[in-house]
Amino acid sequence: MSYVLAVDLGATNIRVALGTREGKLLVKVKEKTVREGDEYSVANQIVNIINKHFSNAIRKVAGIGIGSIGPLDLKKGRIIKPVNLPFKTIELKTPIEEKLGLKVRILNDAVAAVWGEKIFGLGVNVANIVYITLSTGIGAGVIVDNHLLLGKDGNAHEVGHIIVDFNGTMRCGCGKLGHWEAYASGRNIPEYAMYLIETKFSQLLGKSSLKKYVENRKLSSETLFKEARNGDALALKIVEEIGKINAAGFASVINAYDPELITIGGAIALNNRELILKYLAKYLDFYVINRKPKITITPLGEDIVLYGALAMIIQEPECSTAL
Amino acid sequence: MSYVLAVDLGATNIRVALGTREGKLLVKVKEKTVREGDEYSVANQIVNIINKHFSNAIRKVAGIGIGSIGPLDLKKGRIIKPVNLPFKTIELKTPIEEKLGLKVRILNDAVAAVWGEKIFGLGVNVANIVYITLSTGIGAGVIVDNHLLLGKDGNAHEVGHIIVDFNGTMRCGCGKLGHWEAYASGRNIPEYAMYLIETKFSQLLGKSSLKKYVENRKLSSETLFKEARNGDALALKIVEEIGKINAAGFASVINAYDPELITIGGAIALNNRELILKYLAKYLDFYVINRKPKITITPLGEDIVLYGALAMIIQEPECSTAL
Repeated sequence: MSYVLAVDLGATNIRVALGTREGKLLVKVKEKTVREGDEYSVANQIVNIINKHFSNAIRKVAGIGIGSIGPLDLKKGRIIKPVNLPFKTIELKTPIEEKLGLKVRILNDAVAAVWGEKIFGLGVNVANIVYITLSTGIGAGVIVDNHLLLGKDGNAHEVGHIIVDFNGTMRCGCGKLGHWEAYASGRNIPEYAMYLIETKFSQLLGKSSLKKYVENRKLSSETLFKEARNGDALALKIVEEIGKINAAGFASVINAYDPELITIGGAIALNNRELILKYLAKYLDFYVINRKPKITITPLGEDIVLYGALAMIIQEPECSTAL
Repeated sequence: MSYVLAVDLGATNIRVALGTREGKLLVKVKEKTVREGDEYSVANQIVNIINKHFSNAIRKVAGIGIGSIGPLDLKKGRIIKPVNLPFKTIELKTPIEEKLGLKVRILNDAVAAVWGEKIFGLGVNVANIVYITLSTGIGAGVIVDNHLLLGKDGNAHEVGHIIVDFNGTMRCGCGKLGHWEAYASGRNIPEYAMYLIETKFSQLLGKSSLKKYVENRKLSSETLFKEARNGDALALKIVEEIGKINAAGFASVINAYDPELITIGGAIALNNRELILKYLAKYLDFYVINRKPKITITPLGEDIVLYGALAMIIQEPECSTAL
């Protein structure tokens, strides 16, 4: 039982890796996530990837860890009403276990990620860790006193839906008001940027390289950060406003969970390390009361969910009653 | 070892009770908390209360539980720089253990309270519970997956310092911006009420019974809620605004910890049950994404910290490594 299969199940891609007990990812495979079929299509796709690429190793595999988009029903091992995939439910644990004869464990992707950080990343010997992903959405995994937090439905980590603005200027993708994610996630940054330009920074638009994107209403989060990295004054102002909101979000996380370490991942953070850390450092003291933790970009990068999937087989989290 | 001594150590009062293993508080004693002397004065006062009132029972006492104001150094059993008492440190565990020959356990008062709720209140057989106190400040104790959350410094529950307004219109007693407590705690409600009257509700002041308090700048939280209970239109508007902010705070708590039960205590909630629950019910759906928990006023009332102090001796929380 020298190997583990690790799956990072996203709405866009499925990634599967063969890993070792020591935390080495030997081979990684990526496919577009299937969007047609029934509640078994995704499980079938995962089984097919494994049979195609890893059939030689499968006799030596201890189990399959899956870090997945949600919302999850952890007890039944399935996804319920995923926002970004056209299935009502996605069965995972039962069909994969039956077809491959291997045990399957599933966690929310950001929850898997923090477990990966603890077992293979900066969190070794750290009892209180939060992993925050700044990406299409904002998510987190949380370990307090060495316990991986799940909560009644496995959602004791929805920090992207912490309310940073009770006036609810912006509406979140989930439909609710004033959530951190409604201002600072990749999906929602364009709308908030447009709001800031209209209400606060219109005088900077004329000379800005953002002008053509704004006029065509095609401003993306990627463009905004790219122009900020290039030094565009308007883009930098907007990124700083987003940074202030990130500082409020991080401060709420620190005040709620009292971590000694926060690692950050997700495309926005991984592609904009300096900008993200700079404004956190500038604004965190406006908001935080608990002793500040170490805050850094995860060294596990875009593979952190795969590391987490590996880790959950190698060392089962203590919260395992719900798994 | 039939008895337990339970201490509720507040900035204003020290309460000590003799309780049974079954969770009955037999005798309760209250004194004003000492404000003179040195780092041992508070411990001496507790020892003296116990010697004076409970000397007959002390041979049968299993231990002393203390629910205390903070900030605590749990490992050393002391309070560090309490905000509302004139001591740099207050030694608790060591001097009380030495003088009485009994084991002493200490938790933050709201953390003790949620443990009391779990052992003796509505939380029996509930794995995910938050207790929220709406009082001079706003505090909480949190149990996720049956684990009492502490965090690196024992502060994994400072929900009163969750940021509900990143613009930071109001400043918290802790000095930081936009915290829930800065808008909705007893200490800060008067200032926020004045702000609302000046910026939003000035036209209601003329006919309001709050007018004389506002003009003399003597509006208290108690007066505001009393007049709201009496049906004063301005007072009700302000209480509703505070209720909306409470809903944002509760929603952040629900999204962060995913509890199945929230119980509420503290003077503001205990004295204004209907008003507090009414506006929570009205506004929570604006903000919450996780499945809503049962939300109710604690049946343990103003004794909840004493019940928690009792409970921590009778059934040690699993987080006990830090105690």
